[in-house]
Amino acid sequence: MKAATLIRDIPDFPQPGIMFKDITPVLADPVAFAEVIAALSEDIKRLRPDVIVGIESRGFLFGAPVAHELGVGFVPFRKAGKLPYKTVTQEYALEYGTATVEAHVDAIKPGQRVVIVDDVLATGGTAVAAGQLVEKLGGATVGFAFFIELAFLAGRSKLVGRDITTLLSY
Amino acid sequence: MKAATLIRDIPDFPQPGIMFKDITPVLADPVAFAEVIAALSEDIKRLRPDVIVGIESRGFLFGAPVAHELGVGFVPFRKAGKLPYKTVTQEYALEYGTATVEAHVDAIKPGQRVVIVDDVLATGGTAVAAGQLVEKLGGATVGFAFFIELAFLAGRSKLVGRDITTLLSY
Repeated sequence: MKAATLIRDIPDFPQPGIMFKDITPVLADPVAFAEVIAALSEDIKRLRPDVIVGIESRGFLFGAPVAHELGVGFVPFRKAGKLPYKTVTQEYALEYGTATVEAHVDAIKPGQRVVIVDDVLATGGTAVAAGQLVEKLGGATVGFAFFIELAFLAGRSKLVGRDITTLLSY
Repeated sequence: MKAATLIRDIPDFPQPGIMFKDITPVLADPVAFAEVIAALSEDIKRLRPDVIVGIESRGFLFGAPVAHELGVGFVPFRKAGKLPYKTVTQEYALEYGTATVEAHVDAIKPGQRVVIVDDVLATGGTAVAAGQLVEKLGGATVGFAFFIELAFLAGRSKLVGRDITTLLSY
């Protein structure tokens, strides 16, 4: 896909030793951006989601257009303290310390089918926490969709038994 | 519009004395979300943009679907330190202190027509800085589009002579 030719490798971001995949040139190219949203939407459609969850903040860039394309609702999952109304949180472990993903208490209605969208599947920690948060809210996590998978980080091994869409793998 | 009935007032967020407009129920409702993206896109179209800029991070939620709907590129303007590649920044004043909006150096090509999208026009500080940043990059800021205008904060007075779209005003 054209999008694959536009991803830019950034060495040592956000920390030394990390090769970051910069997806902003994909967003800036109308053909590549349309291609990515179409491919994600097409694959997610078979899961019959009621809601797309996007994880702050690059997950918003893919999740919101996919929700719009599919004609379903969009729910932002955010970092701690960003959402204004009453929230439910899920902590998860980072290499050093912990992080939190947060949702409004009424963001998902009981029984809703939810697909979680993010730009990159790396170690899978955020994705697992987001799935747990959907279930705390009474929803059913029916799948995960990522533009890019960093296969060498083995995030997929944390999502065994889950339906996973990825468009590109490194 | 249906979206207007779904906006939720949150008192004292993010600080005491502020009545925050929570737009997440609008995103979660497919009809309201579609209506907002359609209305913004329809009005922005007449400006013939090459690029939509969305301001982190609620601007991403509206800007990315609008860019996709119009078939143009999307460029994220972010808070300091979030973008991986070389950046250009624009500082602006807050009530106490300053904030920074940041873009990749090659995010906008010289001469491109840019419309800046955000969820809310409040005091206008961020919007003005984003417009200046577009121009530092060689682009032309041909308009601003906001889902909501907080008219009592008079942000519009900072954007005199600019083309401004807002769907709802409080």
